[in-house]
Amino acid sequence: MADMTASAPSDDVDPTLEPDVFSRACASRGVLQDATSRWGLLALVALREGELRFSALRRRVDGVSERMLSSTLQSLERDGFVVREVLQAIPPRVEYSLTELGADVAERLDGLIDLVEGRLPDVEKAREAYDAR
Amino acid sequence: MADMTASAPSDDVDPTLEPDVFSRACASRGVLQDATSRWGLLALVALREGELRFSALRRRVDGVSERMLSSTLQSLERDGFVVREVLQAIPPRVEYSLTELGADVAERLDGLIDLVEGRLPDVEKAREAYDAR
Repeated sequence: MADMTASAPSDDVDPTLEPDVFSRACASRGVLQDATSRWGLLALVALREGELRFSALRRRVDGVSERMLSSTLQSLERDGFVVREVLQAIPPRVEYSLTELGADVAERLDGLIDLVEGRLPDVEKAREAYDAR
Repeated sequence: MADMTASAPSDDVDPTLEPDVFSRACASRGVLQDATSRWGLLALVALREGELRFSALRRRVDGVSERMLSSTLQSLERDGFVVREVLQAIPPRVEYSLTELGADVAERLDGLIDLVEGRLPDVEKAREAYDAR
């Protein structure tokens, strides 16, 4: 616990308290969950390839329902990871892209994906050994 | 889709098919979900500090129930990320530690946590702006 009297509180975040995802009350835990949710993670990484329309994003994130993708994108937009842009056209087009912060997050998620995909044979061997016990 | 005829199938994984988390049928997606689940992620990163007994791990992963932590650790052990060791003592002690692969995964997760914790003020500003629209 930091010293609460060390400085005056700011408008938004008390600078004397460090964010800590291990504390259940810390808002950072919810942000981490938005970024690593089943569909949030895949949507962020899919957008690394460039801006996408909703329907294209839904095809890329194989298996997501329209409703789940929509609610996932709303969370990511609210967190400042994704920008939703309505383009003037007939019919209007809606495109999603990463913010600078979203791109940073997505880069790290992509590194994790590379690792998991690359080491999948090791995981499958471990699972076989575990299931045979 | 890779050429299925290029080489003979191996015992465990068809080497002509690259793992792809964007494909709903690929096992890598489930592995990624184990590593990034609400409690799996925190347990993996908590174990970066060294081996921990169940009770100590539960205290560190603030908010997790005994049952959820137990089931989370079983998944992580089955995937080959975590080792569960029963130490001869009275009463017997059970300790959890990371495998080499688990340590690689946890390192990347920790990088993501650093980013999320460090940029929390930006996320909170984005949320305020979104909610005020």
